[in-house]
Amino acid sequence: MTSWIESANAAHCHFPIQNLPYGVFAKNGEEPRCGVAIGDMVVDMAVLESAGLLKAGAATTVFDKPTLNAFMGLGKTSWDSVREQLTSLFAKGGNDALSGNDTLKAKALVPMSAAQMYLPFAVSEYTDFYAGKQHAMNIGTILRGAENALPPNWLHIPIGYNGRASTVIVSGTDIKRPLGQTKAPTAQVPSFKACARLDIELEMGAVVGTPSTMGQPITVQEADDMIFGYVLLNDWSARDIQGWEYQPLGPFQAKAFATSISPWVVTKAALESFRTSTPEREKELLPYLNEPGPMIYDIELQAYMQPEGADKATLLCHTNYNRMYYSAAQQLTHHAIGGCKMNTGDLLGSGTISGADKAEFGSLMELTWGGKEPITLDSGESRTFIEDGDTLTLTGWAQGDGFRIGFGECTGKILPAPDFKA
Amino acid sequence: MTSWIESANAAHCHFPIQNLPYGVFAKNGEEPRCGVAIGDMVVDMAVLESAGLLKAGAATTVFDKPTLNAFMGLGKTSWDSVREQLTSLFAKGGNDALSGNDTLKAKALVPMSAAQMYLPFAVSEYTDFYAGKQHAMNIGTILRGAENALPPNWLHIPIGYNGRASTVIVSGTDIKRPLGQTKAPTAQVPSFKACARLDIELEMGAVVGTPSTMGQPITVQEADDMIFGYVLLNDWSARDIQGWEYQPLGPFQAKAFATSISPWVVTKAALESFRTSTPEREKELLPYLNEPGPMIYDIELQAYMQPEGADKATLLCHTNYNRMYYSAAQQLTHHAIGGCKMNTGDLLGSGTISGADKAEFGSLMELTWGGKEPITLDSGESRTFIEDGDTLTLTGWAQGDGFRIGFGECTGKILPAPDFKA
Repeated sequence: MTSWIESANAAHCHFPIQNLPYGVFAKNGEEPRCGVAIGDMVVDMAVLESAGLLKAGAATTVFDKPTLNAFMGLGKTSWDSVREQLTSLFAKGGNDALSGNDTLKAKALVPMSAAQMYLPFAVSEYTDFYAGKQHAMNIGTILRGAENALPPNWLHIPIGYNGRASTVIVSGTDIKRPLGQTKAPTAQVPSFKACARLDIELEMGAVVGTPSTMGQPITVQEADDMIFGYVLLNDWSARDIQGWEYQPLGPFQAKAFATSISPWVVTKAALESFRTSTPEREKELLPYLNEPGPMIYDIELQAYMQPEGADKATLLCHTNYNRMYYSAAQQLTHHAIGGCKMNTGDLLGSGTISGADKAEFGSLMELTWGGKEPITLDSGESRTFIEDGDTLTLTGWAQGDGFRIGFGECTGKILPAPDFKA
Repeated sequence: MTSWIESANAAHCHFPIQNLPYGVFAKNGEEPRCGVAIGDMVVDMAVLESAGLLKAGAATTVFDKPTLNAFMGLGKTSWDSVREQLTSLFAKGGNDALSGNDTLKAKALVPMSAAQMYLPFAVSEYTDFYAGKQHAMNIGTILRGAENALPPNWLHIPIGYNGRASTVIVSGTDIKRPLGQTKAPTAQVPSFKACARLDIELEMGAVVGTPSTMGQPITVQEADDMIFGYVLLNDWSARDIQGWEYQPLGPFQAKAFATSISPWVVTKAALESFRTSTPEREKELLPYLNEPGPMIYDIELQAYMQPEGADKATLLCHTNYNRMYYSAAQQLTHHAIGGCKMNTGDLLGSGTISGADKAEFGSLMELTWGGKEPITLDSGESRTFIEDGDTLTLTGWAQGDGFRIGFGECTGKILPAPDFKA
């Protein structure tokens, strides 16, 4: 299937008609509203809704809002219906209500270069998991040695912790290097300073659409049905702060300063044909975690670093979402199993996605083996961790037959730590 | 100072005119709105605002909302002004605009017995700390032995972790016993079942009013100024689930099923004369955590247990908020020090408050020393942890000269675990 928006039909375009990811944008300083990406255009869904070309099935309008939450909360019937309407409106030879109306096209189609992107949904709560086995093995080996790399519960529980929703930011937002407490193993007392071991974590984020009920567990199938879509997610991490603070109650300030996500939420529907199975279980799971079908996805992922002034970015790693031991549906099931209420807008980080080869490691901690093996960038500069002025970018796509379901980019630049005197 | 609402003048009344705590209530199935407690009455602040007797200083009305957030976000000038207006309206011999207007009184005064209480504010995010030294020592000793009881960072960092905001509930809400994964030390594999070691944690909660800016640390004085008030908080805990899951990333499902808070938020202004200093530092703090003045409070606290059918509740423990090693202002400072944005409606749990004597231990884990020393209730029944049908109640007050600044109650009843087949 192709679109009358010709830029959508290019082989490497991230946003063909098969994708139709949702985001929130504004043009010319107008109020942010919901949009869908196709080719090099953002389509103003509020304009389509107001013109009667798009109906979400709610009592009131949902696309003139500054977040996707109202639409996301409507559930699968509405999501499917809206996707069908959009497919028809944008397919070559489809419904010509938009393609044949130049006035409406001028109003509804906004070049991506003219659109400012916003956080696509209000993040209700953010949970980060630790579900990549290679990553857990790598980090465990660096911190505790190969013998004790994997915690005893790891093959039974999709280990996760609650993160901080207030600092989830949209791609393109600069980030100040965090201040915090650290203590070198040889130091007698901790010190307060700017993070010296600042890192990325290459992750996918699952976005909850349908809420659950407090006190009511859910099955893996129910969890999968509740997921609206997926984003790229960079779980920025302050390794030196983390090392000193994280025992006994987990990471806190090491992860609280920023989490970046891509502006486009790729829907579960667009990814349907890229479903694949999580790897074979090394230990039998408790029945509540068993997947009734393939629930992870074949999505190519890459991370890049570009120092200030460098003319191009260096590829740091390339990996695939299918490396994960636990799917987002399994994570969501576990999250709700004790009765925790899940809400529209909850964001679940997959955990760092690393493959078996070094080129597939999804963090600098792993790529430089705890800072001991610096990497060399294309510019000739070397790095163990992130320096001020560096821009880090994630990208990813599911490769179809002649088209890509792309996630665009998730990028962020590190600024110097704030001036602060206590 | 006394009030023309005579019930407010009784010696042990929790809600004298010196208190004036805020909450959200409804009567007769009407829409929830903001109220203030005085004596045995809830005063409808939306009615006072609409009658022109109460001005918060916002462009629009704030008290006709179903949460306190709009008012909380206005900051200290507004909080002080509203408190002053209410004090004048309710003082004996004060402004008679309400006391002298029988029609308005009939509309604005609602007997507490006729008011249904709601969660007083929309909880933006919930963070739980671990700032009681005796509690940390007790738990550490039970789990790791006396030698390694206190983690090495404990005397330097107000240790905390992100909790789950979606299951913070108002006092009086029943709670289903959580299901989850546990593994006995002797078992080969984990099992999935209802929590068998269900516990309370007696805590105070600090409520953030004024937001902070992402990327901008705050001082302890700024943090103290941002706090709107305090509530009683029961951080319900599933000890068996926690034991199996919490390494390496902290408590997750063990704490996610419910956190109860009192319906009344006692303002910082009402507690001003009960400020006291945190205990002497055993190790020098980093300067960013130093308190410029007394920032903890002298608040008596009690926990009670009442089994189903018992005619009265048994006192489990009595302790005091002044036992805490770190104040809420120190916790909030640390929370924001890396650049984490704090929002109106953020809730900070103090950590379990335990004193030196066994009668002052703030959890069953400590009171029964890990379940090994059952306690006997007044009914003759014995308990190690909570059984189905048990009602747990926290209460607390600051004792003034002839009056009490009371927090009312924070109560919850445990129901059987849900039926669930994976």
